Amino acid sequence: MVDVAIVGAGQTKYGNHQSGMKGMWAEAAYNAFQSVDKDFQPKQIDEAYIGSVAFGGGQLGNTAALLTEHSGMKGIPVRRVENACASSGFALRDAWMAIKSGQADVVIAGGIEKMNDLTPERKRFWLGVSGDTEWERLAGLTFPGTYALMARRYFHEFESTHDDLVNISVKNHWHGLDNEMAHIRKDVSFDKAKNGFMVADPLTLYDCCPTSDGASCVILAADHVVKQFTDDPVWINGSAAASDYLALHDRPSITQLIATQNAAKKAYKMAGIEAHNIDLAEVHDCFTIAELLATEDLGFTKRGNGGKFARDGAGRRNEGDVCINPSGGLKSKGHPLGATGTGQTVEIFKQLRGEVEQSRQVRDAENALSHNVGGSGATCAVHVYGRNRNE
Amino acid sequence: MVDVAIVGAGQTKYGNHQSGMKGMWAEAAYNAFQSVDKDFQPKQIDEAYIGSVAFGGGQLGNTAALLTEHSGMKGIPVRRVENACASSGFALRDAWMAIKSGQADVVIAGGIEKMNDLTPERKRFWLGVSGDTEWERLAGLTFPGTYALMARRYFHEFESTHDDLVNISVKNHWHGLDNEMAHIRKDVSFDKAKNGFMVADPLTLYDCCPTSDGASCVILAADHVVKQFTDDPVWINGSAAASDYLALHDRPSITQLIATQNAAKKAYKMAGIEAHNIDLAEVHDCFTIAELLATEDLGFTKRGNGGKFARDGAGRRNEGDVCINPSGGLKSKGHPLGATGTGQTVEIFKQLRGEVEQSRQVRDAENALSHNVGGSGATCAVHVYGRNRNE
Repeated sequence: MVDVAIVGAGQTKYGNHQSGMKGMWAEAAYNAFQSVDKDFQPKQIDEAYIGSVAFGGGQLGNTAALLTEHSGMKGIPVRRVENACASSGFALRDAWMAIKSGQADVVIAGGIEKMNDLTPERKRFWLGVSGDTEWERLAGLTFPGTYALMARRYFHEFESTHDDLVNISVKNHWHGLDNEMAHIRKDVSFDKAKNGFMVADPLTLYDCCPTSDGASCVILAADHVVKQFTDDPVWINGSAAASDYLALHDRPSITQLIATQNAAKKAYKMAGIEAHNIDLAEVHDCFTIAELLATEDLGFTKRGNGGKFARDGAGRRNEGDVCINPSGGLKSKGHPLGATGTGQTVEIFKQLRGEVEQSRQVRDAENALSHNVGGSGATCAVHVYGRNRNE
Repeated sequence: MVDVAIVGAGQTKYGNHQSGMKGMWAEAAYNAFQSVDKDFQPKQIDEAYIGSVAFGGGQLGNTAALLTEHSGMKGIPVRRVENACASSGFALRDAWMAIKSGQADVVIAGGIEKMNDLTPERKRFWLGVSGDTEWERLAGLTFPGTYALMARRYFHEFESTHDDLVNISVKNHWHGLDNEMAHIRKDVSFDKAKNGFMVADPLTLYDCCPTSDGASCVILAADHVVKQFTDDPVWINGSAAASDYLALHDRPSITQLIATQNAAKKAYKMAGIEAHNIDLAEVHDCFTIAELLATEDLGFTKRGNGGKFARDGAGRRNEGDVCINPSGGLKSKGHPLGATGTGQTVEIFKQLRGEVEQSRQVRDAENALSHNVGGSGATCAVHVYGRNRNE
């Protein structure tokens, strides 16, 4: 079976963009093309998968065809993948499988979202529509509300308080401070994050990621063509995904995401490593509680210990065993829904190759993981990456 | 490399449904499950791909997770695929590749659309959004208008008149008359179709497909597990897809769909057959002119001869070399956007196995083709099927 490597990766800055969908996509794609070490022509791409939730405020259907025709990919098979905020995590998985299938040697996986030209009402709609509609959204439950329920329940079940979440927020803002691609580059103090504007009790403004515009794009290649493009690839050694009930009330527990646990187990097994081998992880911290739960669900700490893990600063860059969200995560780097999954991969590609800003480089990293969640955990894609190929 | 067969297929009737998205999907999925000859349990499914454009009037995001959790597929990796009206044609291709990749043995590809509870304005929006927005939709060009431009140009370039399109309409209504799954089952005379209400000159009401609700679902299996499910599979011997410029004005010609031509060439080559070997084809006749162009682009007749092909009744069931749209096509069977692609596959599965209503069974069919187009030709997926496996 063919193995798959990443040979190029690029993105736009996350934040408020003046340019439209086509311009943003072209910028991310050409940044990826130019990141390839040896000669690369976009006409070498065989197939493309693009994740997007709101496809330009719900205005630009047939999105994948629209975006690829102006970025050197005209004519190839393209499609949009939608799985709420896990859209491009699944685009990555499908691109990986396209190469595994032997049908393609070079495949693009990417994602894009343009949200900041929407009215607040429409923005709320496009966020809310990714959760359960019948039992949650139409009953008035917002996404911050959904995760606030998880946080309250977690504090009830385990020894943890909002202070643990504050630590996560402070860490991620610190990680993102020097990230030139990040949406929010602010040094946030513990007191400021703790006493932020209340969004959904117990979550303050500093527990919630921003809504960003952005695009991201990674170039995958089959093992037998990798050398054409680079001598320094990053291998995808594990790809797995899972789903769960969409509505919270159907789940046996709301203090763990079963889809994350199942996807992680499979991805580790495929890669032949375990959680303790991971040096850095980009995890889906749409809210700080989501990162806390992810550190448990992904096996970085045991169940019930996520609060202590955060309190101890175990995920801080170059301080603990694993760096959690070196990019700043969704909290600081930003969250352009459909772009987030492959945006995590862009960070990992650059971190493992030692190419991020020096001040925020994770040292001696060999293995990495990305964790991309759709809705409040209904879909999840986990990928495990290595400097070395797992043969 | 593993080969892929269809071992089950089911759909809802196309038309106006009272039930919602979840009910429609469950009906199509369970019809597919029950069509499997030997024992089949939905828990045997490894992965799912679901095509949808408007995902319940734009209300039900994270669609794939929502639909699968109540149809025995909870927990597996699922995603929605959007490529306008070619959404489930691409879902089928991605499902096929998932099996080819060795990552899955049994995969679901399906599609769904619920349109008839929308206001006429919102319905028009969800149709129009699949074409070019900046240069076409916002300038007032509707989808019937887009295809009307193609028809007028075709009549200008080649020897053909609207009467040829009328023949296509009459044929497809005749084909669909006994199809219990069809939206519009009416015996339509030449005069009635010719003198129908004008929609976009030269296209009358009888040149335009209806907007339908519906869902469809096919079960694919890897060669080494096929025998567990059936001794009578239908093999997917070729799968190919392509894209083209979204806006008409960018294309060198609007009387041919380059994406169709490119996808068809690859699919035939992969299957090791040519157009003249195809016994029946489900083609994307969103408008009658689209079928006329498809008969040329797919190689059933040569360029410029599509009018004569239609005049001669060459695509009529059991009369010519190839039966075009035995189901009635989008014109009579209906067009529930995201469900249409895999709906074509449901028809082919049943036709090749001799399981449709006796009065409309295509006789002695060995090879079949499905042709699913997104927008006005920006995306296209072509699949070639056989009673025998192309080894």
